Amino acid sequence: MDTKALESIALSVRSLSMDAIQEANSGHPGLPLGAAELGAFLYGQALKHDPADPAWIDRDRFVLSAGHGSMFLYSLLHLAGFGITLDEIKAFRKLGSRCAGHPEYGVAPGIETTTGPLGQGVANAVGLAIAETMLAAKFNTPSRKIIDHKTFVLVGDGCLQEGVASEASSLAGHLGLGKLIVFYDSNAITIDGSTSISFGEDVAKRYEAYGRKVLKGDMYDLAGMAKLLSEAEAETAKPKLVILKSVIGKGSPSKQGTSGVHGSPLGPEEILKAKAGLGIPVDAKFWVAPEAYAFFEKRRKDQAAVHAAWKEGFEAWKRENPALATELAAWLAGEATKALDLPSFKKGEKIATRNASGTVLQAVAASWPSFVGGSADLTGPNVSQIPGGDYSAQARGGRMIRFGVREHGMASIANGMALHGGLRPYVATFLVFCDYLRPALRLSALMRLPLVYVLTHDSVYIGEDGPTHQPIEQLTSLRSIPNVRVLRPADAEETAVAWRLAMERKDGPTVLALSRQNLPVLEKADPDWAYTMALGAYVVRNTSAAPETVVVATGSEVSLALAAIERIEGDAEARKACGEIRLVSMPSRELFLAQPQAVRDAILPPGARVVVAEAGISMGWEGIASRPSDILSIDRFGESGPGDDVARHLGVTVDHLVKIIRG
Amino acid sequence: MDTKALESIALSVRSLSMDAIQEANSGHPGLPLGAAELGAFLYGQALKHDPADPAWIDRDRFVLSAGHGSMFLYSLLHLAGFGITLDEIKAFRKLGSRCAGHPEYGVAPGIETTTGPLGQGVANAVGLAIAETMLAAKFNTPSRKIIDHKTFVLVGDGCLQEGVASEASSLAGHLGLGKLIVFYDSNAITIDGSTSISFGEDVAKRYEAYGRKVLKGDMYDLAGMAKLLSEAEAETAKPKLVILKSVIGKGSPSKQGTSGVHGSPLGPEEILKAKAGLGIPVDAKFWVAPEAYAFFEKRRKDQAAVHAAWKEGFEAWKRENPALATELAAWLAGEATKALDLPSFKKGEKIATRNASGTVLQAVAASWPSFVGGSADLTGPNVSQIPGGDYSAQARGGRMIRFGVREHGMASIANGMALHGGLRPYVATFLVFCDYLRPALRLSALMRLPLVYVLTHDSVYIGEDGPTHQPIEQLTSLRSIPNVRVLRPADAEETAVAWRLAMERKDGPTVLALSRQNLPVLEKADPDWAYTMALGAYVVRNTSAAPETVVVATGSEVSLALAAIERIEGDAEARKACGEIRLVSMPSRELFLAQPQAVRDAILPPGARVVVAEAGISMGWEGIASRPSDILSIDRFGESGPGDDVARHLGVTVDHLVKIIRG
Repeated sequence: MDTKALESIALSVRSLSMDAIQEANSGHPGLPLGAAELGAFLYGQALKHDPADPAWIDRDRFVLSAGHGSMFLYSLLHLAGFGITLDEIKAFRKLGSRCAGHPEYGVAPGIETTTGPLGQGVANAVGLAIAETMLAAKFNTPSRKIIDHKTFVLVGDGCLQEGVASEASSLAGHLGLGKLIVFYDSNAITIDGSTSISFGEDVAKRYEAYGRKVLKGDMYDLAGMAKLLSEAEAETAKPKLVILKSVIGKGSPSKQGTSGVHGSPLGPEEILKAKAGLGIPVDAKFWVAPEAYAFFEKRRKDQAAVHAAWKEGFEAWKRENPALATELAAWLAGEATKALDLPSFKKGEKIATRNASGTVLQAVAASWPSFVGGSADLTGPNVSQIPGGDYSAQARGGRMIRFGVREHGMASIANGMALHGGLRPYVATFLVFCDYLRPALRLSALMRLPLVYVLTHDSVYIGEDGPTHQPIEQLTSLRSIPNVRVLRPADAEETAVAWRLAMERKDGPTVLALSRQNLPVLEKADPDWAYTMALGAYVVRNTSAAPETVVVATGSEVSLALAAIERIEGDAEARKACGEIRLVSMPSRELFLAQPQAVRDAILPPGARVVVAEAGISMGWEGIASRPSDILSIDRFGESGPGDDVARHLGVTVDHLVKIIRG
Repeated sequence: MDTKALESIALSVRSLSMDAIQEANSGHPGLPLGAAELGAFLYGQALKHDPADPAWIDRDRFVLSAGHGSMFLYSLLHLAGFGITLDEIKAFRKLGSRCAGHPEYGVAPGIETTTGPLGQGVANAVGLAIAETMLAAKFNTPSRKIIDHKTFVLVGDGCLQEGVASEASSLAGHLGLGKLIVFYDSNAITIDGSTSISFGEDVAKRYEAYGRKVLKGDMYDLAGMAKLLSEAEAETAKPKLVILKSVIGKGSPSKQGTSGVHGSPLGPEEILKAKAGLGIPVDAKFWVAPEAYAFFEKRRKDQAAVHAAWKEGFEAWKRENPALATELAAWLAGEATKALDLPSFKKGEKIATRNASGTVLQAVAASWPSFVGGSADLTGPNVSQIPGGDYSAQARGGRMIRFGVREHGMASIANGMALHGGLRPYVATFLVFCDYLRPALRLSALMRLPLVYVLTHDSVYIGEDGPTHQPIEQLTSLRSIPNVRVLRPADAEETAVAWRLAMERKDGPTVLALSRQNLPVLEKADPDWAYTMALGAYVVRNTSAAPETVVVATGSEVSLALAAIERIEGDAEARKACGEIRLVSMPSRELFLAQPQAVRDAILPPGARVVVAEAGISMGWEGIASRPSDILSIDRFGESGPGDDVARHLGVTVDHLVKIIRG
């Protein structure tokens, strides 16, 4: 190990970070200054990757869970040669700069995940590490390991206080993820001051309780760090937590060790003093130690050689295992390895959409061997079982992850699995508990990850479990997140199409909102409904090209609306009053609203009165319904009782809808 | 301890639970059968309370965190004499029954909190225990302890896997809550099967790491349980975790110890077998052991005597401390002890609403000494400091809780503090991180708890921190939760009124969405605006009683809209095209929509075209704006960059709004 060179890297990280944050007049110097040595060690020594090909599938992953320390990452990506230029660093936190306020996945090379919301990176990394073991189990052969890399993480005190990190860390220990190595930048400072005001726990002991190998060292002892890593790597059956005692903002003579250095620029005077103390030319801005550049120039050659050797092995593996190679290509592209053969359902048959989903899931799993995931301890109720067995420390080839009662950790881990590449993850829980995993879902959407969220028990019809378990506002609140696609199928057939749409989607997450109660498989007026449904809505029942009234419904309310329409049509007077009535199923309001006006007009003719029915809040339907009073909705919490009784109590009935339609 | 009597209670809990769940054909027998002995011990021996007065302020609190085991609680409340009748138990899970699917706070006496969403009860209990120490510090005198009670909790494996429980448990240890005693019903079974599939951690060690005294015992050894409790109580500086090894569904001969008994009725045959095995008359339904009734009849007399003794001491305390007694009455009523003296602000002055809030907070804190709370490690950025010092193990009189980076735990703990009675809690974090605490906020709303959520950094104007930190959908997603009141003040003056409204509210939580950037204090056309604002909206600027155009805005967009209107009015042609323009500030859309039509018409005259401006998603504004194109909104994630640049990039500009108004 070239300690001198690593020191020059650390110095350069400090220099670039101080200046970039000052230039932006915004940012967090505490971490890059305090943990620069770890950065030097990781990028200068430990990480296996090739800056010339940041997408190399067998690279080590590095997750900066403490994403506010983004200049740490940008400095190192610049030095290591990932293509971040000095000009980009000078534009840190400016609009359009790839050096955004927090690291953003997909924006700059070498960023493995979007971090900033604390705790998420810890859980993402668990997902990355799981993915590695799954791909290794599937594709490695006795003679060739084409997937064999580690996952490194940098966490701060804040990340370790978050519940999502606890959930994921517990599961990581349970799963024995031996290639997951977490470095804890233990500086004992958070925004409010010393961690002693709120964080008195024994973190080492807690992580040992999770089944982790815990090691302790000093952030500023590079030789010691190398020894710690060797020790860590010697333990292959447990994930590691390496606790490095550090000083936040180290190098800032009057601010280091205080919360004042966490999230504000140092100020020009303090920077001058820091530079003088560190041995950085005081009159230089964005200075980089020449030794650091020189070191990485050489290192890139070594890395290219390592990568080339891997490639050679990989090419040999491909020749030796052509079928596996074809499959790997499909996995990496997120594609099916055989055409999706959706099950068919009998018209009129009554089947809960969660059960239909359980059947469709088998077809999806057969077509996408890369489709893996599981439920937060609700595998049976979510009907989310797939073949292939449970994934565990003993069975890395298993496809079902038993996430435990850890909704938030589950979704954040699944984000990590998707980020790794090669897998198409799904997760499952009750719709109402999407609230628990919401921060991770938002990141799925922001990072454009094609996760599938299987959310069952989608309305008050679940009944007896009562208001804590009955979703009311959840459909709307999920639709409110940009780039989340919510599909609420009306029957088993729509459920099958919804799964197809979810799997075809590559640029963001899909939520499937599924019923616990049985729903009839509907006759559909639109002969191309399975195609039209991709537009968000289609015509289920039609008596005229120019209907006077259109009833729009989603999920279980489509069959309710059908019954209401049939009631009206069976009553001459009512029929006369309402005119011709069309029934539209709108499994995705957002997809529908994104269509061109002509498409929307074809489904909802401009002159027609539009009535809406959904067993959730009305918010968001005002733009579809003709008047607020034309919406059948539930704008209050639910009640405990048998589902039909609750629905009746809340006015989700054929009678009520008939009244609304009759106006 | 009358072990025989306790055994008869346990037997009765099993009998009632089996039958009630069977009668409802829905429910969770696993916990009531598996933990019946703990129930017998708590209600028959350990708990200090008086069923004749379930609201006695100094009662011990019992939280059934594993709320699905609700029949455990209903059985014990019935036996102990809390007024739950056998008929109500027979109506378990029927619509309108006080014996709802999950325990619901406020529905039946003796239910201390609504549980069901796992992990929440663990955190609520931490809040209950904090509240006890705060009230004790304030009101006890050297000679009289009028507040001196414990908080007991029953948790299962599921609760302990949830991140919110981890967050709260870590803080509880840090705060040394010595009167918090958690019993862990360790049956090693969750819905998916054995905990060995997902939960391999060493729970005892983890809780020791949190600073907890951990004890271990056997659920079915009543004498041992009593000894454990004595041991637990001997340790006064640490919260306790008492791990009781148990068998889920104990007494169900063929189902006990399996996940099959967790959440489904046993079935008539199994119940017969269970009754035969347990010694319950097989032909009796809803059988209660006569000894159990007899025991509680006597116990109620003892409890009444204990309560009477407390009352005597309390009356003496009141005589000795009349000023304190007056104050306690105000605290318990949630009232101010002196009139709220809101600060005034100078028109035209530019002040961020978070800073205005920080000033108003001082007035609120002065008027409500019961006002306590804190931030999830963002005290400075949230400007949420109040006087009175930090609350800690050494300073129980402190009013500021340093919650650490634990948003979810914070809100759930604050729910518990409010549930205790006597305190008016507030919590604070960034608006975007309301996603982290959403499940707890939903429970604040469901339980009608008057918490104040101080959520700052309320729009993309926060700038450089980028899309992970910029709220987009959060205002809408918060408004979607029934009974949550969102107030987004436009300036410092509105902020003061918003605080008054929040503190006056007694039946649910209020969210204050506050800006990081400066906003001018506006002139208001409505002379009674501070009153009218309680209706959700009022007229800021007016040129006619019958305006052609009304611009509705919230928060920072009110001053933006004012600038747009002034621009138009300065341009003769534009002025002619738009006609008279009114500006309406609508700090609470939901309050406004709840007003009678006449009130709404007075603010938004029916004939006028309505344009809306809010730096968030458009969803929900379709019902206010005349057309979808009349909304200035942000229907995508934000960007990293200086706030004004980001706003410009996203079209939140005077120019853009002028264009929209001109149509």
